[in-house]
Amino acid sequence: MDDLALWQRYQDWLYRHEDLGLYLDISRIRFDDAFVEHMQPKFAQAFEEMAALEQGAIANPDENRMVGHYWLRDPDRAPSAELKQDIVSTLQDIKTFTQQVHTGALYPPGQEKFTDLLCIGIGGSALGPQFVSQALTADFPPLQAHFIDNTDPAGIDRILNRLGDRLATTLIIVTSKSGGTPETRNAMVEVQHRFEKMGRSFAKQAVAVTGIGSNLEKVAMGQGWLGTFPMHGWVGGRTSELSAVGLLPAALEGIDMIAILQGAKIMDAATRVADLRQNPAAMLALSWYYVGEGHGLKDMVLLPYKDSLALFSRYLQQLVMESLGKERDLDGNIVNQGIAVYGNKGSTDQHAYVQQLREGVNNFFVTFIAVLEDREGDSIVIDQEATAGDFLNGFLLGTRQALYENQRDSITITVPSVTPKIVGALIALYERAVGLYASLVNINAYHQPGVEAGKKAAAGILDLQARAIAAVQQVSSPLKLGALASKMGAEKDIETIYQILRHLNANNRHIKVVNPDAKPSEWLITHQNAD
Amino acid sequence: MDDLALWQRYQDWLYRHEDLGLYLDISRIRFDDAFVEHMQPKFAQAFEEMAALEQGAIANPDENRMVGHYWLRDPDRAPSAELKQDIVSTLQDIKTFTQQVHTGALYPPGQEKFTDLLCIGIGGSALGPQFVSQALTADFPPLQAHFIDNTDPAGIDRILNRLGDRLATTLIIVTSKSGGTPETRNAMVEVQHRFEKMGRSFAKQAVAVTGIGSNLEKVAMGQGWLGTFPMHGWVGGRTSELSAVGLLPAALEGIDMIAILQGAKIMDAATRVADLRQNPAAMLALSWYYVGEGHGLKDMVLLPYKDSLALFSRYLQQLVMESLGKERDLDGNIVNQGIAVYGNKGSTDQHAYVQQLREGVNNFFVTFIAVLEDREGDSIVIDQEATAGDFLNGFLLGTRQALYENQRDSITITVPSVTPKIVGALIALYERAVGLYASLVNINAYHQPGVEAGKKAAAGILDLQARAIAAVQQVSSPLKLGALASKMGAEKDIETIYQILRHLNANNRHIKVVNPDAKPSEWLITHQNAD
Repeated sequence: MDDLALWQRYQDWLYRHEDLGLYLDISRIRFDDAFVEHMQPKFAQAFEEMAALEQGAIANPDENRMVGHYWLRDPDRAPSAELKQDIVSTLQDIKTFTQQVHTGALYPPGQEKFTDLLCIGIGGSALGPQFVSQALTADFPPLQAHFIDNTDPAGIDRILNRLGDRLATTLIIVTSKSGGTPETRNAMVEVQHRFEKMGRSFAKQAVAVTGIGSNLEKVAMGQGWLGTFPMHGWVGGRTSELSAVGLLPAALEGIDMIAILQGAKIMDAATRVADLRQNPAAMLALSWYYVGEGHGLKDMVLLPYKDSLALFSRYLQQLVMESLGKERDLDGNIVNQGIAVYGNKGSTDQHAYVQQLREGVNNFFVTFIAVLEDREGDSIVIDQEATAGDFLNGFLLGTRQALYENQRDSITITVPSVTPKIVGALIALYERAVGLYASLVNINAYHQPGVEAGKKAAAGILDLQARAIAAVQQVSSPLKLGALASKMGAEKDIETIYQILRHLNANNRHIKVVNPDAKPSEWLITHQNAD
Repeated sequence: MDDLALWQRYQDWLYRHEDLGLYLDISRIRFDDAFVEHMQPKFAQAFEEMAALEQGAIANPDENRMVGHYWLRDPDRAPSAELKQDIVSTLQDIKTFTQQVHTGALYPPGQEKFTDLLCIGIGGSALGPQFVSQALTADFPPLQAHFIDNTDPAGIDRILNRLGDRLATTLIIVTSKSGGTPETRNAMVEVQHRFEKMGRSFAKQAVAVTGIGSNLEKVAMGQGWLGTFPMHGWVGGRTSELSAVGLLPAALEGIDMIAILQGAKIMDAATRVADLRQNPAAMLALSWYYVGEGHGLKDMVLLPYKDSLALFSRYLQQLVMESLGKERDLDGNIVNQGIAVYGNKGSTDQHAYVQQLREGVNNFFVTFIAVLEDREGDSIVIDQEATAGDFLNGFLLGTRQALYENQRDSITITVPSVTPKIVGALIALYERAVGLYASLVNINAYHQPGVEAGKKAAAGILDLQARAIAAVQQVSSPLKLGALASKMGAEKDIETIYQILRHLNANNRHIKVVNPDAKPSEWLITHQNAD
């Protein structure tokens, strides 16, 4: 395609949302008109399914659930007055609570004010809050946020040690729908233990964001925590950023949560339009389908040219991969769907792996995100009459052009600046694009059976560990690994038992390996207190 | 394969380095003996090429350079006494300088001691230092490190604003081989500008790590910076972590750089063994070749189950993708090689995208990294007689097992703890694996032609910007976009001109778009001061 034809294609497909000041350019995805025509019936159906979902249909059949994250930013669309009221009153509760914390009306025992925020959660309870925190907090926010998003003991120690005495003025948010997510529960217990050692009351510094009637809610109420905020069954973890899960920490960090909701509502309206060429989410879904042939054959590389958006790719890893990465379609056929997502930020990543993107294996498409506003205030001129921001823009445009010339496709989203409104809009844009794409490939985007399976597999490992510990405690003289497995009646699990013992031995817990330098099959195992 | 056959395969292939306490398990990569036999001649050649490289052969033919990162940790292997002396004396210089900073013998003007470290660099000058900093710094290091790794004005402001008055006690390291990398140069100029506004001398708080005779070295010497440290031509950016590039910031942060070097030296010895089954780097390269059929058909997903190793995947993105992502092989054939790398940490990522890994598109293999030591000190028991660390281990083992059962391959590296020695060993392991794999697929792993091309493309954009600004300044009445492009003699670049103008307009620089809400082709452009 020559330059002027390409310029025409660019203009023909350029989407602009005037109110948001947002542009979407899919001209560098090489579909043709015939492909668009071919996709029209699929999109017609996808728009219908989306409309039904928004009206409260059971869009998650496996779990028999409605999918209601769109109602969060436009409560009038909720399918019942009760749901609407729930959304509105939760928002009010967040506002009231935040005000009490910021003014010092709510304060930690013996201290004047809360200074820090410690968010305990994983997956959808961490990725959104982390992304929004990095994107939108002021240089010196009213509360400084910290995150524990894992069950790594050293990682937990690192956060708590660095907080140190400031734990006394740290507000804790524990976020877990069921309260049963082990990583979150473990981190909570570890933090409670630290509070006990400090002689402080965890309950007087903690709030929970959790499902109504969950174990965590019961604990929080029973122990008299500062409050609880609801996670509704009709909001999935990966689409919960605009529920209390994301809005509570954002508000506490001083971020305008109403503007986030407003941006999402505006984008929701724009992506409700049942016309492929006028709907930016549909244009994204069309592009994903085209490059990956509807089977995720190409990875989605996300390159925002703005430091504050560096965590967007991690947020989208969950939103896209957990929604689309499915074994079966809605008819039960094995399809092994999904789109892999990775990326950090430009132009930084140009010095990491754009070498491969330009020249290497062509198994990806790039989504560039350009931010028009360079900074607050003026910039100095550095070289070639250009500012640091001109260079950043130049790197983006140069890379986009060079990739295209090398037959690598890309999408470019351009936003005026990184504001709460724009962040809300970006989240809503991708939520909708994922939902539409799921319709195109006929999968349930709203369940995650593999995550449940993973929890069960881990529980099986811990069960095996408990049995191994029990078996070792009964031995009077060192046992060979094989003999121990037999004693446990778990011969077929011998490798897993070996790995469990290796970990226990390294931490001096329960068991001792007499000869750890021997080959696994020669290992002699006894209990920790034996000589 | 039944469980006991798999246990036998596990033991047969389990690599253990006794001194390091490191294990490598490739039993869950499904190659068979015939494949290993088939690969033996390729490995024989790869070992020969690696031996020649270590002895100083020109292993980077395009740039006519030796490849000497292995000498850094074992200077006796350097091919000349002069090179050896260079390595040894640089190490000594780093030690002396660090001691002076830590004791306060070197101090910022009017202040007692340096408290913070600001590292300015990108690519290989940032990823290694960031990874090592996150992995190895104490909770309260002697100097707290900060990084500017981009030319994003808002990102630079964020770092400098948060440092605030502490800039007065911040030591700056500017790292750039040529001094010509625009992102690094721009960030340096921005920081210098901030110092000027504060009335402080940048030179009295700055050191450079740069090529001998580079522009940056001249500037540093001319302005009387605190010091300069060398980046040698025979060390590539992505293998420079164990040169002054990585060791200087590490030492200043209080990390035992000698132990890092020692770990790398031990691993170098282990991966010099010309026997596939006794060489962990060769075992990695074999696995990569097998799963990707020698063409990078599967992505490398890196999952360290330890928060402190979360940046290892970003470090490896550069090391692997920039080394292997090449258009042509050494004979000039177009091969489009590479292996895509992504990942953050476990078990956190299990709640992001392990859903897709388990069930979705099978276009990846996982590399698990297990750390045996959970934390310093004892752990509390949380549930099922298990600690937080037992859960972490259980999630790793459960996920590995479930992926295998779903026909997804994985590698597991197990280390005793995250120490300087182990981090050095991991870096050396992957450096060697990348070098061997490059031999297997017959490419030059030590150049990066696409990065150069990217710099040129960006320079072209800035040139176009300068021409557009000049053209607009000459107009007396608003010009249409097409007319402006014609006036510039750049009709074919009209789309790029449009994008440049959109960015300039948003930042109120030089030009003004009279009707920014109009379609691009209708835009009327004038200069900033026009009415």
